[in-house]
Amino acid sequence: MTSRYPSPDLVEFCASLFGAVGVPSEAARVTASRLVEADTRGRTGHGLIRVSSYVHRLQAGGMRPDADITVQHETAVTAQVDGGNGLGQVVMTQATELAIEKASAEGLAWVGTVNSNHAGAAGLYAEMAADRGLIGVYLAVANANGMPPWGGNNPLLGTNPLSIAIPTDVGPPFVLDIATTNASHGTIKVAAREGRPMPPGWVDDVDGTPITDPHRADEGFLVPMGGYKGSGLTVAIGLLAGVLNGAAFGADVVDQRQDLTTPTNTGQAILVLKPDLFVPREVVLAELRRHLAALRTSGTLDGSDVRLPGDEAARVRTDNELRGVPIPPALAAELSARALELRVDSPFNAKET
Amino acid sequence: MTSRYPSPDLVEFCASLFGAVGVPSEAARVTASRLVEADTRGRTGHGLIRVSSYVHRLQAGGMRPDADITVQHETAVTAQVDGGNGLGQVVMTQATELAIEKASAEGLAWVGTVNSNHAGAAGLYAEMAADRGLIGVYLAVANANGMPPWGGNNPLLGTNPLSIAIPTDVGPPFVLDIATTNASHGTIKVAAREGRPMPPGWVDDVDGTPITDPHRADEGFLVPMGGYKGSGLTVAIGLLAGVLNGAAFGADVVDQRQDLTTPTNTGQAILVLKPDLFVPREVVLAELRRHLAALRTSGTLDGSDVRLPGDEAARVRTDNELRGVPIPPALAAELSARALELRVDSPFNAKET
Repeated sequence: MTSRYPSPDLVEFCASLFGAVGVPSEAARVTASRLVEADTRGRTGHGLIRVSSYVHRLQAGGMRPDADITVQHETAVTAQVDGGNGLGQVVMTQATELAIEKASAEGLAWVGTVNSNHAGAAGLYAEMAADRGLIGVYLAVANANGMPPWGGNNPLLGTNPLSIAIPTDVGPPFVLDIATTNASHGTIKVAAREGRPMPPGWVDDVDGTPITDPHRADEGFLVPMGGYKGSGLTVAIGLLAGVLNGAAFGADVVDQRQDLTTPTNTGQAILVLKPDLFVPREVVLAELRRHLAALRTSGTLDGSDVRLPGDEAARVRTDNELRGVPIPPALAAELSARALELRVDSPFNAKET
Repeated sequence: MTSRYPSPDLVEFCASLFGAVGVPSEAARVTASRLVEADTRGRTGHGLIRVSSYVHRLQAGGMRPDADITVQHETAVTAQVDGGNGLGQVVMTQATELAIEKASAEGLAWVGTVNSNHAGAAGLYAEMAADRGLIGVYLAVANANGMPPWGGNNPLLGTNPLSIAIPTDVGPPFVLDIATTNASHGTIKVAAREGRPMPPGWVDDVDGTPITDPHRADEGFLVPMGGYKGSGLTVAIGLLAGVLNGAAFGADVVDQRQDLTTPTNTGQAILVLKPDLFVPREVVLAELRRHLAALRTSGTLDGSDVRLPGDEAARVRTDNELRGVPIPPALAAELSARALELRVDSPFNAKET
C-alpha cells in the first residue's frame, strides 16, 4: 500500500542520500527540494523516482557531486551558467535565480546553461519566476533521444520540454509544463512502474503501430505532440536550449539511462520577464485573473469547470501538503535499498522494509 | 487556370489598392509586401486572399488607414508599439525592427503591440530577425475565436500562432510557423476556396465528430494541436501577446470576419535574441548547420530527406520568385473587382476578366 510522508522528511532523506555520495549540503538540499516539489505537484516522473539514477550517476563519475558552477558571458540581461557537470537541479536553480535578479532590474532576461544535467520537472523553474511575480519560460534538451524528426526514422530528438508560468494575484500561477512529445520518459517510467499500459499515441513502432507495453517503449519511437508542429517545436527548443549554449543536441545527446559515465553536457534556457512591462501591475494582474476565471467558468458538456494548466498540480500540491506525499511501495523499497547501501536513515524503513 | 505574376507587380498592385482607400504610400507598400511575401512562401492563407477584407475594413472604419503608430514604455530591451488601430503588417514590421535594433545592441529584446490588427503570416516577423542574423520568436492573438479551452464548450480561444526563426550561415533559416490549432482560419479559407474537404482533426462539432466541409467550419470548434498541451500553449500565447499588452483576449476578441467596424485591439509580441550570446558566432552557426544537416539526412522510410520547418517555404519561395507567384482565378477575379471599384490598374485584367 502506498504511504504518505511529509515533504520536509523526504527532502531531508534525499539530501542525506546525495550527501552520502559527496554532494555538499546546500546542493544536496536544493536537488532534494526540486525532486520532492515535483512529487508534491504530482509530476512523479521527475520526483523521487529519479533519485537512484542520480546516485548511480554520481557514484559512477558521470556527474560531479562537488561541481564548480560558474557564470559566463554575463551582461545586464543575459548570462550563461556553466554547471561544471553538476546536478541539473542545482545548476538550473542558480540559473533561474540569476534570470529573476536580472529581469527584476531590467524587465527581461535570458539565461542559458551548459555542462548541466537533467533538472527534473520543467514547471518548477518557470514557477520560481511566477512565485516572484514574474513570467518564466523554460526550455530544455531532454536527456535521451527517442523520436525521429518528422517523416524520419532515426531518433535524433528527445522530449524537449517547455514550461511557461504566469503569475496571478489570487490562487496558484498559470503553469504550462509539457514535453513536446505526447508522453515523456518520466511518464512512461511511471506507467511501467505502476503496470499500466500506454495509450496509443505515446509510442509507435517503425511502421506507426502503437506500442502499449511501457516496458517495450524503447523498441519504438516517441510521437510528437501535434504531429509536424510539435516536432518542429522540439527541434526549435533543442537549438535554443542546446546548440546556443554549446550543449548537446541530436546525435551528441548522451542517453543518461544507458550511459552512467559520460558527461551529458545538458543545455537549458530560461527567459524571465516582468508582467507589467506595458500595463500597470494591478491592472495586468486583475486582467489575468478576469480572463483565467472566464476560461475556467466558460462551460463544459458535464457542467464542471474547465481546468487550466497548473490547476491540477495546485490541487495535488495542496492535498499532498496536507496529507503527505504518496510514495508507492516499489519506490519506497528502492529508496530504502539506497539508504541501506549508503548508511542513511530512511523514513520508509519502519513501514516498508 | 491559375496564372503566375512577378511579386513586385503584385506588391505594386496591392499597395495601389490600399493607397486608394487612404493608406499612406509607405504603409501601403509595407502591407502589400508582407502579404505578397506570404504568398511567395506558400502561406496563401495570409497572402492576397486577405486584401479584400482589409480594404473593406479600412472602408468601414474598423481600421485606420492613416494610423499614428507610437512607441510606449521604452527601455533598452523592451518597448510597446501602439498601433493606433493601423494595419497589423505595418505595426508588426515597426515592432520587429525596433526589437531587432534593441537586440542588436543589448543581445535580447521583447516588443509587444497594442491596438494592432491582423498581421498575416507569423513566420515573416520571426524571419525578419533571422535575415539580420538574429533569432526571432513571434506570438500573436488570433483575430477570431473558434476553440474552447480544453474540456470546455465555449469557443473563447483562437488559433494564436507561434513562430520561431533561427538564422543559418548557408541556405534559408529554420522557420517554425504554426497555428496552435491543427488548422488556421487561413488554411480553412484556402480549402473552402479551392473546394477541398478538411481532414479529420481540423474542426469538430460539439460532440467531437469531425466536420469536413470547410464551408461549415463555423458550425464546429477548432481542434488544438496536441490536445491539452496545444490548448495550454494557445492560452499562454494569448496571455503573453494579448493581456500583457492590454490587448484583446478571450471574450474581448473581435471577430474580424463578422465585424468590420469595431477596432480589434490585436496584440502581438516578438522576442529577438542574438544566437551568439554564449558561443562565438562562427562556431554557433557551424553547429546549427551541422545539426540541421544531420537531421535532414538522418533517414526516412522512403529514402528521401527529412524536411525541417522552413524548408518547404524556402523551396516554394525560390520557385515563385523564378516563375511568378500563382494567383488562383477566383482570387484574381475578386481582386480585379476591387481594382475596378477603386479605379486601380490590375495586373489581372488582361488575363482574367
